[in-house]
Amino acid sequence: MAEIELTSFEVSLQNLMIALEASDYDEAKQQIKDLHPGEIALLLEAIQPKDRSVLWPSIEISIQGEILKEVSEDVQSQLISEMTVDSLVKATEKLDTDDLADIVPNMPESAVHSLLLTLDFKHRERLNKILSYPEDSAGGLMNTDFITVRPDVSIRAVIRYLRLLKEMPIDTDQVFVVDRNFNYLGSLLITSLLTEEPERMVETLINNDFSKPVSADTDETEVALLFEQRNLISAPVIDENNQLVGRITIDDVVDVIRDQAEHSVMSMVGLDEDEDVFAPIIQSSKRRSVWLGVNLVTAFIAVYFIGLFEATLQQKIALAILMPVVASMGGIAGTQTLIIVTRGIATGRVTAANIKTLINKEVAVSGLNGIIWSIVIGLITYYWFADLLLSLIIALAIITNLVVAAFSGAFLPLLLSKLKIDPALAGGVILTTITDVIGFVAFLGLAALFI
Amino acid sequence: MAEIELTSFEVSLQNLMIALEASDYDEAKQQIKDLHPGEIALLLEAIQPKDRSVLWPSIEISIQGEILKEVSEDVQSQLISEMTVDSLVKATEKLDTDDLADIVPNMPESAVHSLLLTLDFKHRERLNKILSYPEDSAGGLMNTDFITVRPDVSIRAVIRYLRLLKEMPIDTDQVFVVDRNFNYLGSLLITSLLTEEPERMVETLINNDFSKPVSADTDETEVALLFEQRNLISAPVIDENNQLVGRITIDDVVDVIRDQAEHSVMSMVGLDEDEDVFAPIIQSSKRRSVWLGVNLVTAFIAVYFIGLFEATLQQKIALAILMPVVASMGGIAGTQTLIIVTRGIATGRVTAANIKTLINKEVAVSGLNGIIWSIVIGLITYYWFADLLLSLIIALAIITNLVVAAFSGAFLPLLLSKLKIDPALAGGVILTTITDVIGFVAFLGLAALFI
Repeated sequence: MAEIELTSFEVSLQNLMIALEASDYDEAKQQIKDLHPGEIALLLEAIQPKDRSVLWPSIEISIQGEILKEVSEDVQSQLISEMTVDSLVKATEKLDTDDLADIVPNMPESAVHSLLLTLDFKHRERLNKILSYPEDSAGGLMNTDFITVRPDVSIRAVIRYLRLLKEMPIDTDQVFVVDRNFNYLGSLLITSLLTEEPERMVETLINNDFSKPVSADTDETEVALLFEQRNLISAPVIDENNQLVGRITIDDVVDVIRDQAEHSVMSMVGLDEDEDVFAPIIQSSKRRSVWLGVNLVTAFIAVYFIGLFEATLQQKIALAILMPVVASMGGIAGTQTLIIVTRGIATGRVTAANIKTLINKEVAVSGLNGIIWSIVIGLITYYWFADLLLSLIIALAIITNLVVAAFSGAFLPLLLSKLKIDPALAGGVILTTITDVIGFVAFLGLAALFI
Repeated sequence: MAEIELTSFEVSLQNLMIALEASDYDEAKQQIKDLHPGEIALLLEAIQPKDRSVLWPSIEISIQGEILKEVSEDVQSQLISEMTVDSLVKATEKLDTDDLADIVPNMPESAVHSLLLTLDFKHRERLNKILSYPEDSAGGLMNTDFITVRPDVSIRAVIRYLRLLKEMPIDTDQVFVVDRNFNYLGSLLITSLLTEEPERMVETLINNDFSKPVSADTDETEVALLFEQRNLISAPVIDENNQLVGRITIDDVVDVIRDQAEHSVMSMVGLDEDEDVFAPIIQSSKRRSVWLGVNLVTAFIAVYFIGLFEATLQQKIALAILMPVVASMGGIAGTQTLIIVTRGIATGRVTAANIKTLINKEVAVSGLNGIIWSIVIGLITYYWFADLLLSLIIALAIITNLVVAAFSGAFLPLLLSKLKIDPALAGGVILTTITDVIGFVAFLGLAALFI
């Protein structure tokens, strides 16, 4: 096989690993010296905690803050725990308020206190404003660096003002138009400042397409949906009095989208999307153990039902051999439906309004597949055990389990959402318990009746 | 339970569904009339294909193109199949070249031909350029609308030029600096045009932080990683001769990120992220059936091994009752590792350079959990069946299966990647076959030896 060409990041990681494995820490420090903070963040996530501890102090304090905001929560906690209050304050004081707000909850209280003292009144106020909203709301996601202009000035005046500012907050694609009481009136694209006539007044150029403000208590999922639907770069955030309080930028929304999507796959096996891949063994064991425990309970629920049919199993050992097939087919069919519906709910496509249509469809799909595969399984069974009754029983059990699986897979996510239980976390484990129990009971129960 | 407040999208969907269920199509058309194309796209995805057919022709041709580029591939194909060549050309001719390039592969050949005829030479050239790159490369992702300036002009001259242009491509946060042969030299942020002195020359303001160009043949996964690491809004794309050929914007990268993350959960059960939730029953059945078939094969592989121990099972029916527990615990532990490693590979954190460290860690974690849970399971077994030997056997089988599961879960994704097999698609099914077989063989094999 031809050697696959390595990306520049893979090369960096390879070189770093070689240095670390040789315990050549000077070389390792040299390797990461001139990289972009985002790349260093990724490299730190890709090495063991003990190596992070060695490299971290050698990184310039001015970019430690940039790195802290990029790494996942678990790694962030580790790095913070290894800094003095003093260096932590120095590293973070220059960060954007929204990034600071993400880090503060992981900081020791003494550091938060010192940090607040170093911030000027305006920044402290802003930070408190963001922290006053839930982390997963538009208010928690917003930053407070934005540019406002009045409606009754000319483009020329706006440009003169911007030139005085010397620089603009990053990701500024629009300036917000407010009245003297900071009520939000609309927005003006930066590009139109450049393309429109300097004499035109701001109020005549307010852009209505992008200007729909987001209320600060909006859930971050909805914010992400809005950005995706409208391809936004930034959006204004208002409070309950229509006052402009912040601005959400696409880079933070991208993190929400990635986290959301990863959450759905990670939580299927009880993992967290903030999980540190190289976390210490004890820490990882603890977290995963919980989910194994949950699975153990459901597994014993399922085998309890098998136990009820001990006499039947004793009579015909082929039942014991074949019963995993029935449970497994139900598990797969149900999980297919579950994943489709859970994702549909997460992306807004499936709601209470169209779930009935979807349940009908899923049951029909699974019923049809049940008929097809029950015939195949019946034939294989007959070929293996030459027992017509057994073949009919397994076929019937398969159809039953697949129909129940589809119904449960479609119904569960919405039910769990209504009960405020995360369907991505609990859906899979509840569903497979159902398909295991129904699979075993249908198969062994029918056998007990007819054999 | 208090009524949950509906989002504006949920209200739109609810109203639309009420109208559709009452077959009041005039009302349904009215409901979607004034919405944003992105919202209409989502609504169309949330209703049945037959209802889409009714609503689609009532949507203005000028926004049909905008909707086509937003919907998922399956729905796009349906909508395209219901349009005449003529209206399809009219709906799409105004789209950005990159969006057009996404739709063209789903268009009938006659429509592509007519469409190419309506485009002027420059656009046709650009479209062909994009289509000449793989769909999942930077070249396939880029659009060709961007602004270039020369290094030896002043900011004032650039602004004058932009004012003549009247408008800029959407998501323009930077203009690209090229020489007279269109060689890429760097970029200039739009915001610095507004904040810097008009007399300064472009070449003195070239931004090096954002200016690293992406080569057109870069994989889209790497592009997404770059945008995330550096929080980019746009990035220049160059060909092998350092010539500027296009520009990638964040809205398209967001789609890549979403697709990638969803791919990992969807393909675990053989689904495609482009899947139409409300696809016709036959179409959905066919697709899912394939995966049920794959699962059937693996299920029969597993039960074949059970069959080998028929005599042992006959001797002690408790083995039949308990064996699903062993398989299931291995499946969960292995899947935890598999998901962590697959995700690590997808996000660049895990490569050949650090996989050994990770395998060691995962096996240690799983071994530790194996010891803990084997004790618990042994005790439960003893309590249930009062059989010390059986308890020891199941405990030993659990530890064995969990260790093998962790090793396979960590090793498989990298092996599959090297073999160019999608680990997200094949990893889960291969892994559970392994954990089922090892679980059954370890448990029943030990029993055959000692009982």
